[in-house]
Amino acid sequence: MEISALQKARLEYSPKLPPALSGAIDAIAVSFGDPTESIANQAELKQLFAKTYGKPIAAFGKGANPNVGKELRVGVILSGGQAPGGHNVITGLYDGLKKANPNSVLFGFLGGPSGLIDDEAVEFTDEFIDRYRNTGGFDIIGSGRTKIETDAQFAAVLETAKKRKLNAVVVIGGDDSNTNAALLAEYFQTQGTDIQVIGVPKTIDGDLKNEYIETSFGFDTACKTYSELIGNIGRDANSAKKYWHFIKLMGRSASHIALECALQTQPNIAIISEEVESKKKSLAQIVEEIADVVAKRAAKGNNFGIALIPEGLIEFVPEMKILIAELNDLLAHNAEYFASLRTFDDQAEFVSGKLTDHSAKVFGSLPRGIRAQLMADRDPHGNVQVSLIDTEKLLIEMVGERLDQMKAAGSFKGSFKALAHFFGYEGRCAFPSNFDADYTYSLGFTAFLLIANGLTGYLSSVRNLSKSADQWVAGGIPLTMMMNMEQRHGAMKPVIRKALVELDGAPFKTFASHRDTWAVETSFRFPGAIQYYGPGEVCDQPTITLVLEQQA
Amino acid sequence: MEISALQKARLEYSPKLPPALSGAIDAIAVSFGDPTESIANQAELKQLFAKTYGKPIAAFGKGANPNVGKELRVGVILSGGQAPGGHNVITGLYDGLKKANPNSVLFGFLGGPSGLIDDEAVEFTDEFIDRYRNTGGFDIIGSGRTKIETDAQFAAVLETAKKRKLNAVVVIGGDDSNTNAALLAEYFQTQGTDIQVIGVPKTIDGDLKNEYIETSFGFDTACKTYSELIGNIGRDANSAKKYWHFIKLMGRSASHIALECALQTQPNIAIISEEVESKKKSLAQIVEEIADVVAKRAAKGNNFGIALIPEGLIEFVPEMKILIAELNDLLAHNAEYFASLRTFDDQAEFVSGKLTDHSAKVFGSLPRGIRAQLMADRDPHGNVQVSLIDTEKLLIEMVGERLDQMKAAGSFKGSFKALAHFFGYEGRCAFPSNFDADYTYSLGFTAFLLIANGLTGYLSSVRNLSKSADQWVAGGIPLTMMMNMEQRHGAMKPVIRKALVELDGAPFKTFASHRDTWAVETSFRFPGAIQYYGPGEVCDQPTITLVLEQQA
Repeated sequence: MEISALQKARLEYSPKLPPALSGAIDAIAVSFGDPTESIANQAELKQLFAKTYGKPIAAFGKGANPNVGKELRVGVILSGGQAPGGHNVITGLYDGLKKANPNSVLFGFLGGPSGLIDDEAVEFTDEFIDRYRNTGGFDIIGSGRTKIETDAQFAAVLETAKKRKLNAVVVIGGDDSNTNAALLAEYFQTQGTDIQVIGVPKTIDGDLKNEYIETSFGFDTACKTYSELIGNIGRDANSAKKYWHFIKLMGRSASHIALECALQTQPNIAIISEEVESKKKSLAQIVEEIADVVAKRAAKGNNFGIALIPEGLIEFVPEMKILIAELNDLLAHNAEYFASLRTFDDQAEFVSGKLTDHSAKVFGSLPRGIRAQLMADRDPHGNVQVSLIDTEKLLIEMVGERLDQMKAAGSFKGSFKALAHFFGYEGRCAFPSNFDADYTYSLGFTAFLLIANGLTGYLSSVRNLSKSADQWVAGGIPLTMMMNMEQRHGAMKPVIRKALVELDGAPFKTFASHRDTWAVETSFRFPGAIQYYGPGEVCDQPTITLVLEQQA
Repeated sequence: MEISALQKARLEYSPKLPPALSGAIDAIAVSFGDPTESIANQAELKQLFAKTYGKPIAAFGKGANPNVGKELRVGVILSGGQAPGGHNVITGLYDGLKKANPNSVLFGFLGGPSGLIDDEAVEFTDEFIDRYRNTGGFDIIGSGRTKIETDAQFAAVLETAKKRKLNAVVVIGGDDSNTNAALLAEYFQTQGTDIQVIGVPKTIDGDLKNEYIETSFGFDTACKTYSELIGNIGRDANSAKKYWHFIKLMGRSASHIALECALQTQPNIAIISEEVESKKKSLAQIVEEIADVVAKRAAKGNNFGIALIPEGLIEFVPEMKILIAELNDLLAHNAEYFASLRTFDDQAEFVSGKLTDHSAKVFGSLPRGIRAQLMADRDPHGNVQVSLIDTEKLLIEMVGERLDQMKAAGSFKGSFKALAHFFGYEGRCAFPSNFDADYTYSLGFTAFLLIANGLTGYLSSVRNLSKSADQWVAGGIPLTMMMNMEQRHGAMKPVIRKALVELDGAPFKTFASHRDTWAVETSFRFPGAIQYYGPGEVCDQPTITLVLEQQA
């Protein structure tokens, strides 16, 4: 069968570039700022990144750049979870390379970092790459979660790079992958090679951002897809007037997605993990607050509503965090004996006996299904797989129990019927919005320019994103500038600091100033499906988060 | 906060009308065919519908119609589940009425049929109705599932109609609601009034169609929304290459949605309930077939895939149908004793002891969670709520078990990790596609014309829908023409026959001719989000089902 009509139409779309990048390729000059410092732990990081620490910020503008046309051999990998626009980073990089010198070569390493380690790659051609322009997914070369960590792995990557005669490697990934890119850049330098490494900021979770990286790519499209669905469900709830919908959204560490979707759809309830942690809210307190909104709405005859729940919530609830840590430890140390226990009751009894009193009490208060999930489903590191825990169902069950008590006490007179949803995979591979298509193509093109100008250890950066693309500014940010030292597996490691939701930031404050109204009134907003054509205000708007952050 | 940009833009959209309807209102003439017969049970139906049986098909074309401008008072209800386009039926009806005579009045009865019974209504004004043009949802007046069944209810509706001085009532609903409309039309006649009743064919399930009703409204938009999500998930599966996604889709009686989504997205597996029933497939056989596809893909290194499951599947599996019927009966007759049983084990033991041997064996073979669901969650009629049974999880669990056996026997060497999804509420209230926006507006406008021409007991009909709107044809089909007698609650009742997937129809045959390839190859198709603007082939295409049916 044929490809879809939209896919065919999107292949023809020409992504917009920042004005400085859209002219002749040898008329884009680089300029530099002052030397930079890391956000913290400057002394340690200066030592760990002796060769690449403290470089200046790079910016691209109009100007002569006669050497941009040298022949280059570049490798690229997609690392970590899918995000809309990954394909366009590669097409932007490819187009930049070929525009500067048609003999330059781009290799795509397969299945993420392991492709670099094992030297599995394809060489891109026009015909191959043209089938992926402006499409979603990472299927062009696949992705993977392998980390380049051991000495042997670093050496293998160097060997691959030498064998392929690479001038540079581009790593498209999140905070972890870009930390890895910084380490690889430093490693290549210490090994006496001049192979460059450039990172590109990807993650739908939106937690890789700072003063210079205004947003990571994919966040825009994913949030718009989830908001489409939440809006549709909100309209259904307000038509049928008989169900509460508890909708869990991606975002394990940060609640940027839940917050953006709340701003887009104006639900009755949206929980932000960072606030839960900051205010040290217990599970009982969260349940009480939700039950209170349900009761208030019921008193006005509205036995329906929408509640947004971030995927990672449970780890931000202090008592649950402790319980999960104890369980991880306990099950790791008693794996064999635990595996010999056949029934849920035996398992639960064993676990309860080994937990601290407080955690045993918390564990005992949870519904059976959740206790079973907490005891099962470890990841390869022996940890609970948080995304598999049905937090939305846990809350439905506990809110239902609380409302039963309130009904008995006369403080709730309505009905509470709730349905659970989880949106994650629905948005990670959508066709990138015009914003993400333009942004990622520009990031890829900028990655080429950073390489062509001999830079390494930089993150591709495109800024001024809340304005239209003709006002965007391209450049590069030294990766070390975004780093600090953090505890990882019992040791201090250099890492890019994750950007969590700031409770004093404009997006959260805007949400907080409206949420009491949204809770009780029905103020649902219906964003509808992502539009790629039509009026600019319909198809070219960035996220509300980005607009509010830039206004602030 | 403001309404969304898309909502604002959609309010300005002008739905397309069939050419015969787009000129001056007094230049649309009606013409009639020969008297009609019902599809079966002609004698009984002629007796039951003595006043309204056998009317001719009506068609609208260009011609003088000087009496169309008489002042009218019309009531409208939305009945049953939400479907995209409901609001546009009302705006089309309103615009027709007001165009013919600005003094005509349209009442919207609130909350479905109960609004007619209890006389709860709003009178539409321009300002009110303009806020709902081309939007999704039924929130303009709400919907409901009350049936007008008892003598008292019929009398109450008549009283409402007389009090409001209504000339006509328009019922927007599915097969059940339109059966109700036919009965109401007959009732008004037998009571000596000339109050007319006109139906409009709504249901996202797509099972209200026949030679004259090419499709029910909402099916197009809902299928496109689900296909967007399935395509995104398929792209994710093909990027990550590690998960099977089992996706349950709406459609309790008919699998039209699963079939259309399969044609749109080309998944590895799509189960069609009608085929399961026709071939009398057992659950074990379905599981075996799925496991076989998983194993074949694994042999090629592809431990991922997409499987579509219709919501109603379980009732089409012969042994499950019998089990469910026995359970419904058993629990209805032992409700009190059963309620006294506190534990799952006690309940399961009681049930197993009362079932026939065969059903007890089937029951015992099901996973614990499914047995619990089968024993809980009755609807108000005491029946299992099929939509709440996690058929997709049942299949994942049973396929997993079967693959474990195959692995032990050496016939499966891959890995099977599966995730479950259920899409229903995500699509029922989407902004109607251009197709549904145009179709529903035309249906509403046609309903006005049927009223203005003095007809009753008709279903509004717009045909030639696989062509562009400038070739559409409007008319009316006598409701009795689509009826037959069927068993309902132990008695023979006149009903509109549900349109199931025809196994010798073009849509199923097209699917069947490709499915073996789609099973083993990765042929995923990515429809993307519904587009309302842009090239015609992107934003104005009808469903593949409709196109194939019309070609045939």
